[in-house]
Amino acid sequence: MSEVLFQSRGKVLTVDTMNPAVKKVEYAVRGPIVIRAVELEKELKQGVKKPFTEVIKANIGDAHALGQRPITFLRQVIALCAYPDLLNDNKFPEDAKERARRILQACGGGSIGAYSASQGIECVRQDVAQYIERRDGGIPSDPNNIYLSTGASDAIVTLLKLLVSGEGRSRTGVLIPIPQYPLYSAALSELGAVQVNYYLDEENCWALDVQELRRAVTAARQHCQPKVLCIINPGNPTGQVQSRKCIEDVIRFAAEEKLFLMADEVYQDNIYVQGCQFHSFKKVLYEMGPEYCNTVELASFHSTSKCYMGECGFRGGYMEVINLDPQVKLQLTKLVSVRLCPPVPGQVLLDVITNPPREGEPSYEQFIKEKTAVLNNLAEKAQLTEEIFNTVPGIKCNPVQGAMYSFPRIEIPDKAMKEAQAKGQSPDMFYCMKLLEEMGICLVPGSGFGQREGTHHFRMTILPPTEKLRILLNKLKEFHERFTREYS
Amino acid sequence: MSEVLFQSRGKVLTVDTMNPAVKKVEYAVRGPIVIRAVELEKELKQGVKKPFTEVIKANIGDAHALGQRPITFLRQVIALCAYPDLLNDNKFPEDAKERARRILQACGGGSIGAYSASQGIECVRQDVAQYIERRDGGIPSDPNNIYLSTGASDAIVTLLKLLVSGEGRSRTGVLIPIPQYPLYSAALSELGAVQVNYYLDEENCWALDVQELRRAVTAARQHCQPKVLCIINPGNPTGQVQSRKCIEDVIRFAAEEKLFLMADEVYQDNIYVQGCQFHSFKKVLYEMGPEYCNTVELASFHSTSKCYMGECGFRGGYMEVINLDPQVKLQLTKLVSVRLCPPVPGQVLLDVITNPPREGEPSYEQFIKEKTAVLNNLAEKAQLTEEIFNTVPGIKCNPVQGAMYSFPRIEIPDKAMKEAQAKGQSPDMFYCMKLLEEMGICLVPGSGFGQREGTHHFRMTILPPTEKLRILLNKLKEFHERFTREYS
Repeated sequence: MSEVLFQSRGKVLTVDTMNPAVKKVEYAVRGPIVIRAVELEKELKQGVKKPFTEVIKANIGDAHALGQRPITFLRQVIALCAYPDLLNDNKFPEDAKERARRILQACGGGSIGAYSASQGIECVRQDVAQYIERRDGGIPSDPNNIYLSTGASDAIVTLLKLLVSGEGRSRTGVLIPIPQYPLYSAALSELGAVQVNYYLDEENCWALDVQELRRAVTAARQHCQPKVLCIINPGNPTGQVQSRKCIEDVIRFAAEEKLFLMADEVYQDNIYVQGCQFHSFKKVLYEMGPEYCNTVELASFHSTSKCYMGECGFRGGYMEVINLDPQVKLQLTKLVSVRLCPPVPGQVLLDVITNPPREGEPSYEQFIKEKTAVLNNLAEKAQLTEEIFNTVPGIKCNPVQGAMYSFPRIEIPDKAMKEAQAKGQSPDMFYCMKLLEEMGICLVPGSGFGQREGTHHFRMTILPPTEKLRILLNKLKEFHERFTREYS
Repeated sequence: MSEVLFQSRGKVLTVDTMNPAVKKVEYAVRGPIVIRAVELEKELKQGVKKPFTEVIKANIGDAHALGQRPITFLRQVIALCAYPDLLNDNKFPEDAKERARRILQACGGGSIGAYSASQGIECVRQDVAQYIERRDGGIPSDPNNIYLSTGASDAIVTLLKLLVSGEGRSRTGVLIPIPQYPLYSAALSELGAVQVNYYLDEENCWALDVQELRRAVTAARQHCQPKVLCIINPGNPTGQVQSRKCIEDVIRFAAEEKLFLMADEVYQDNIYVQGCQFHSFKKVLYEMGPEYCNTVELASFHSTSKCYMGECGFRGGYMEVINLDPQVKLQLTKLVSVRLCPPVPGQVLLDVITNPPREGEPSYEQFIKEKTAVLNNLAEKAQLTEEIFNTVPGIKCNPVQGAMYSFPRIEIPDKAMKEAQAKGQSPDMFYCMKLLEEMGICLVPGSGFGQREGTHHFRMTILPPTEKLRILLNKLKEFHERFTREYS
């Protein structure tokens, strides 16, 4: 009898009983296209014949996976910290040893296996603060305002978690750009916050227009309480770099409308186009004077995963908070303490990034050479991408001014639109799936980031090695032309 | 005018406007006592005179911080993976190199700086599954059921996040032991789930009694929907090791009452008392036959932070899910993909822990020697702690059968209770604060873990080196006697 009882017994946890907020979460960067790409890789390994010999994953900004070499100095310091016996090895340069010794001294028991303070190791936060001061031309940064994190995503979600409250019409609204990096929409779904879209101006190189912000906030006030404004600069997936004027306008707008500013600045070193320059929100805020820099609440985010480092696997990052209410800061510190501490190897990496070899130190030249080579190569690939895409009728690509992605607009013929609809797919998902099956190229459909109704895009990272990127772009060209013919 | 406007302008984010669920979160392990301990350390450094010369932090299971040395083999493999040039160095043993090569091959671009699969590197999950099979006498483990995580805390919170739903009387109830590890209560506060307490039996060496579970569930059904049963074995903060019989009873109870089982088994190697043995919930579940092992939903958690490794800073861990609904598994995989991947250095560490040197390999003897030394030393300290505490009138300490903590009961005189009340402190917080100020010893009050009304405890880790632990215990004895005299 009991066997029957147990066989008929349903699961406790099903899609019907689970947390409905989690069910709503979407994250296209690792969605169905990527799952299919991994399957295809396995089929290829098993000898299944395909119209391609390898799958190129250009769906994600994963520099090392696409062949970028780690920066030697960073890895030397990590190895020394992980296995301090190497401090006696004369193959390691003295400046790497000096960094490692300093970090180990700050670790409990001299081991990176000890928990750190929940906010992050104090000397690392000091180095981060000094890095920010150098970056921002001497504007002061307080180590007590720095929170180290498990990549930037972790810090962004943590801060949103603090900010979201209320029910119904007083529920917190969070303004995010469209197109956006889908961490934002995913986190807002999970937290049950109201996502308020503001559209970037594709015709104007994906610029942010304050009029559009105003439209979005005004509309949102009808049904929620907009409290937070998220900015991604340089843009992901859109690759634009914001002008100083634009940042000033945004800050003024945030002050007027009482919005908490969240500035995602993880691509701050990835600037490729002459005339473009990275301006941190913090710096502009301070330069606008006390009226702004003493009042506007700002959190800015950085990461070890992007720029010239590309150390995604270490999950290192930080946020700097400005004008955060002291009581809220205590709450933030309490909240991060529940997870004990961010991964210490990621903290070590962040330390070395913010305290790199100085002129005159033994590793300086090699470090600068490696760093410059990565950034120059990225600039070259940014240009190559724009150039080749814009030779294809039906593809229109804005300049990749910064970050690591192009987000070209694609024309999809009516016949293809209908076929997609019949399959229950968005037109750009249909396009990308076909591209994957026919060419072995894995991209993310624009619908995963958001786009204006009736337009279609995909995101492609520019990270593959130059020659491979050229092949990739030409294959894409070939595919798009064939696709257009097939469905015209 | 505008200056006045901005000066009078309040903050967007205040304790009044912030997420009220976050405000409710409490986490005593890093609470006010620890904040004061850090202040005292700073004062000592500045030369302020205190009745002690150093602060001993016995508040947290942080092995390396308290002097335990990392296991050589683990760190060698990490260093090799971080800086693969070392693969050419003949100072590293071949078995360490072989592990490193295998892991690097599984990483994108051969770098631990690449993102891994969100569920974790496939070969690491295979090694984890084989480790579980060996541990459980051959009961099969599927790598697809393994999810790597950022320490065990991350996996526990992720799974709870999936499980919590409903409003009012249909809100999810989660059964947790009292005393508990406060990650649970903190996560439940944050998620707005209903915490359902079941009390461990202090008179019976903190054993879990199914009658008490039944009482708790029955009472809870009046106001919520109990869906989850959390078990910590070996116990934190209570140090008990559950008998096989008890685990069977719990599984039967979970089946009858339709509860999802969460087994926190991060101290599985930390067993000290003759006659006690670790039984995994998974193994017992399978041995109870198909009626149970095909139906009861179970997640079990493990970590790199405890056992003989003590590698807390790496934030490595995994969970194994059994009988999880396939649709829910897809939701889980989607949810973890938003954070991209667990830290890869922690995954490497977990790999080596689950695939340690084998007999005949060059590192085997040293590895076993180091591992055994740590565990033997802990067993010695577990006994020492119980012995010394039980010589003190007014302190009563259960045997520390496993894990890393003692949780003795302390008698607090009425006069002290009144003084605590006057200060707005719980009596054990008052006790621990005084202990810190007078002796420089940092412990966590029992109220941070939960305890039966009218009883008082503290948690102390047994991790300090034996001689230091002996001094610590004797200082505690001296303090308790003085405290009792002072308030009698």
